[in-house]
Amino acid sequence: MRKYKGCSKLVVKPGSTQDVSKVLRYCNENSLAVVPQGGNSGLVGGSVPVYDEIVISMSRMNRIRSFDGTSGIMVVDAGCILEVADKFLAEKNHIFPLDLGAKGSCQIGGNVATNAGGLRLLRYGSLHGNVLGIEAVLPDGTVMDDLSTLRKNNTGYDIKQLFIGGEGTIGIITGVSILCPQRSKARNVALFGLESFEKAQQAFRVAKSQLAEILSAFELMDEQGQSMVEFVNQRTRPLDSRYPFYCLIETSGSNPEHDSEKLEAFLEHVMSEDIVSDGVLAQDETQMQSLWSWREGISECVGHWGGVYKYDLSIPLPELYNLVEDTRERLTSAGLVGDGDTFPVVGVVGFGHMGDSNLHLNVATRRYDKEVEQLLEPFVYEWIAGRNGSVSAEHGLGLAKKAYVGYSRSDTMIRLMQQIKTLYDPNGIMNPYKYI
Amino acid sequence: MRKYKGCSKLVVKPGSTQDVSKVLRYCNENSLAVVPQGGNSGLVGGSVPVYDEIVISMSRMNRIRSFDGTSGIMVVDAGCILEVADKFLAEKNHIFPLDLGAKGSCQIGGNVATNAGGLRLLRYGSLHGNVLGIEAVLPDGTVMDDLSTLRKNNTGYDIKQLFIGGEGTIGIITGVSILCPQRSKARNVALFGLESFEKAQQAFRVAKSQLAEILSAFELMDEQGQSMVEFVNQRTRPLDSRYPFYCLIETSGSNPEHDSEKLEAFLEHVMSEDIVSDGVLAQDETQMQSLWSWREGISECVGHWGGVYKYDLSIPLPELYNLVEDTRERLTSAGLVGDGDTFPVVGVVGFGHMGDSNLHLNVATRRYDKEVEQLLEPFVYEWIAGRNGSVSAEHGLGLAKKAYVGYSRSDTMIRLMQQIKTLYDPNGIMNPYKYI
Repeated sequence: MRKYKGCSKLVVKPGSTQDVSKVLRYCNENSLAVVPQGGNSGLVGGSVPVYDEIVISMSRMNRIRSFDGTSGIMVVDAGCILEVADKFLAEKNHIFPLDLGAKGSCQIGGNVATNAGGLRLLRYGSLHGNVLGIEAVLPDGTVMDDLSTLRKNNTGYDIKQLFIGGEGTIGIITGVSILCPQRSKARNVALFGLESFEKAQQAFRVAKSQLAEILSAFELMDEQGQSMVEFVNQRTRPLDSRYPFYCLIETSGSNPEHDSEKLEAFLEHVMSEDIVSDGVLAQDETQMQSLWSWREGISECVGHWGGVYKYDLSIPLPELYNLVEDTRERLTSAGLVGDGDTFPVVGVVGFGHMGDSNLHLNVATRRYDKEVEQLLEPFVYEWIAGRNGSVSAEHGLGLAKKAYVGYSRSDTMIRLMQQIKTLYDPNGIMNPYKYI
Repeated sequence: MRKYKGCSKLVVKPGSTQDVSKVLRYCNENSLAVVPQGGNSGLVGGSVPVYDEIVISMSRMNRIRSFDGTSGIMVVDAGCILEVADKFLAEKNHIFPLDLGAKGSCQIGGNVATNAGGLRLLRYGSLHGNVLGIEAVLPDGTVMDDLSTLRKNNTGYDIKQLFIGGEGTIGIITGVSILCPQRSKARNVALFGLESFEKAQQAFRVAKSQLAEILSAFELMDEQGQSMVEFVNQRTRPLDSRYPFYCLIETSGSNPEHDSEKLEAFLEHVMSEDIVSDGVLAQDETQMQSLWSWREGISECVGHWGGVYKYDLSIPLPELYNLVEDTRERLTSAGLVGDGDTFPVVGVVGFGHMGDSNLHLNVATRRYDKEVEQLLEPFVYEWIAGRNGSVSAEHGLGLAKKAYVGYSRSDTMIRLMQQIKTLYDPNGIMNPYKYI
């Protein structure tokens, strides 16, 4: 989003945990600020050295340390790229419990540090459940060796949890132990058109009930976003007609026939009950990827005109899409949305992980514009606070959300978090100016 | 196990979070030690007031606060009994993601405080992933309101995780928000006899691969344990012959026919490949409960002769049962195991959650005996430490394991844990003499 620019003069690339320890101890003793950096794919400025911080890049620590086929437990260096780990696991008939658009460049240490959510959370749960152990280096150089490969270990406070989503502010993750599920033999992808958000919710409830244990994704897209993907990518739509909403459903299971039967029964139900208006079922891997590209392509296509304001929000499901409508109405009635160059806003788009109540609100613009910004903020955050939502569902706080944490967290919680920061990083050298 | 005796002269039964806050503030100001108490079903003395601590019983705070049928998110008071919550959810077509033998008396606050594992962990994962929010009162009376009902909320350190498994040493949990899965329409239970632990591991690998998404339990029992259940309960065995090992498998899925087909294919495979020697499949709910009773009955039956030494351990799967054999050999060669009253030990039994690499080692005795104790400890803990296992997989530390945490945790980790304890409870009033 071109919001933050790195200003560091020094990048350190440690090759081992001991290297990280030496670097941090030196920086701590000399009060030198550092910014840990993984694949640099974050959206909130968390990995950007905004002043003159020293960048500690984890890219050289990229080994897969071990994998046990019976338990499915894998141990990796923090700098291992997500897609590399997932491809390794595919050969072993397993799957990484996390998947996201940036998989080709993001690193597992960064995923854990930002508590990434992504496309498989609905099925496999969050990193707080799947990460079994963490090796991290504290600011004073202490190596925290909590790289357990046990599924259960009730011996004291689960300290490593503070590092999951800690965004590199209390230490640097150097290794991760994670529970990886069996890879499913069968996969199906379907895409539907629906007349209303109410119907999308109905479809979700039916999918949860009928697809149950094989449901692996339930994604929402609106017409505005799909028309942008069509325009930018110049591709033919998968459905003949247009609908206000679309849902993408993925199933993953161990028996192709059983999965197809379940999916057919589901389709029959939602079609005959008029819950969905039209639908298409991918016939092969290529078609699956093609359908997914209508969902995954949104993020990039909305940036086509110059700028995007991106919000990643948790909202109670019944109200999830109201925010998109309210925002669109707000910008439209201010005369800022239109087709010509005089209008800063091209369109207001909503999509996201409906199965997790996680909305991505994207405002596509022709340029970054103060008036648009002032209409969006704090409006969006106040709207969220009024519904007990979260101002950052899966992207984290970084620099972008630092000022807005109070909309999702009480003063008490913020004070408790600041205590943790002070406890671990009394000199304040770890990723300063950000987070809490 | 008659190991600890409560000595408190005062039990306080707060009716609200505000009550808890007032009690704790008073105790903190006056340096009065307290012990939070749930259903009192723990096995490590964590809820016992060993000196003259004031008991804070959560039993009056037992409401179900809310449940949302679309997301499956439930909010309950800490004192709500697990079975009450699960029965409430059954009516709503959902299931509590945790199940354990003590469900009729244990309380959800206690489950969360001890990070209970139990029978459904293999399928639904740990409380670190399923608990979405916690309301707790800190020792100084501060109410920590982190009772989020969002599946995703990346706004700062996930402080509540410290309370999951914190065993009431940094605050008292008063409310819990938890993600509950859909209840499965179909359930099947099967029990097998196997010739060796190697074959039990093979069966587990096949079950993971073929039953995959419908596998909901994989439990291990040995012949010694089953013969005790037979003797104490005077019941006919489910299988005609005896085998060194037995496995109980449960499946839960959304389509009864599909599940039966998967299970039949699995059975055919493990029988034809000589992995299992014999097996029985429950034909109805009564038979399911009957098969389960051969697993769930062990814990109680081993206590029939007077005393039991119980160990709850995580061990890498290939070596899981070796500890039982080594312990049996050790006690037998010391002349302590036999049929007459002169022998203190009746038998050495191993069983547990094989799917989670979690072994319950039980030594059934006629009386508590110093010689037996000295042969068991620190032997068992040293054995575990040598294999990087955990001296407490799911029972917690309490008083029983306090002295042994060093076998599973490094000095660095223990120091980090002590920092947390000091940060939250500087006066040391919360469940003292225990834990870290």
